[in-house]
Amino acid sequence: MNDHHFVLRLAQVQDLPQVLDLVQGLADFEQESDAVTATINDYNLAFANDKIWVNLALVENNIVGFTLCYDTFSTWKGKMFYLEDFYVADNFRSKGIGQGLFDAFIKEAKNRECKLVKWQVLDWNTRAVHFYERNLATIEREWWNGKIIF
Amino acid sequence: MNDHHFVLRLAQVQDLPQVLDLVQGLADFEQESDAVTATINDYNLAFANDKIWVNLALVENNIVGFTLCYDTFSTWKGKMFYLEDFYVADNFRSKGIGQGLFDAFIKEAKNRECKLVKWQVLDWNTRAVHFYERNLATIEREWWNGKIIF
Repeated sequence: MNDHHFVLRLAQVQDLPQVLDLVQGLADFEQESDAVTATINDYNLAFANDKIWVNLALVENNIVGFTLCYDTFSTWKGKMFYLEDFYVADNFRSKGIGQGLFDAFIKEAKNRECKLVKWQVLDWNTRAVHFYERNLATIEREWWNGKIIF
Repeated sequence: MNDHHFVLRLAQVQDLPQVLDLVQGLADFEQESDAVTATINDYNLAFANDKIWVNLALVENNIVGFTLCYDTFSTWKGKMFYLEDFYVADNFRSKGIGQGLFDAFIKEAKNRECKLVKWQVLDWNTRAVHFYERNLATIEREWWNGKIIF
């Protein structure tokens, strides 16, 4: 068996606690360890209400990566599919897992008849920017985010 | 009657063509006139499926501003309300209309029990940035957008 063999499948509700663990890992990678306040109940509710689409990458039955996406609406383009989070665990990078997850995200967006896909990347994450540019994405550097946390 | 008197109300389906006209106005303001390819059918479908929340500002029964928002999900915080578009027509700025629309957006997010609100602003739009800062928003300058238009 190829060490790099991985399987993609959609998450089920019982996978969500492990997804939340990986989100914490992503927050650590982004130097924001304390920022994760969402609970497993928040995830379960969004999942039950069909508000999130979660795709998993597994190696030997362990979740080593995921994408979490949802439908939004672009006032300029119409139906949009948004990639909120995209993570591959450190030890499993450069094995095609991220590409497989990204391809599946694009395919799902097209199945949903979306007109565009969108996501964000941190300006210091050069490796991710290069990955997206290889996938012919446009990287917009002129928008800032506004946010208020209640 | 005060010249600056305005009324806020939720959009109905018959308001959507005028909203799309204003979106075109916003694209002009952002120097992207040709980028709007969404049709009124796209708007009608999103509205009928309860995918968008559209709030209008009216002066003498004319729509002079609007916000268009939708529910999303933050993997870090949980339920999020996203301000996709926010527009006040040129001649009607500095009259409190933008503040009224923004306050209503925040109120709706809290009614929906969202944990945060988010939006974007162009880096050159100093006036908008100052508006958001006065509203105690955090402005994040370190995220870039990735996008692919199909």
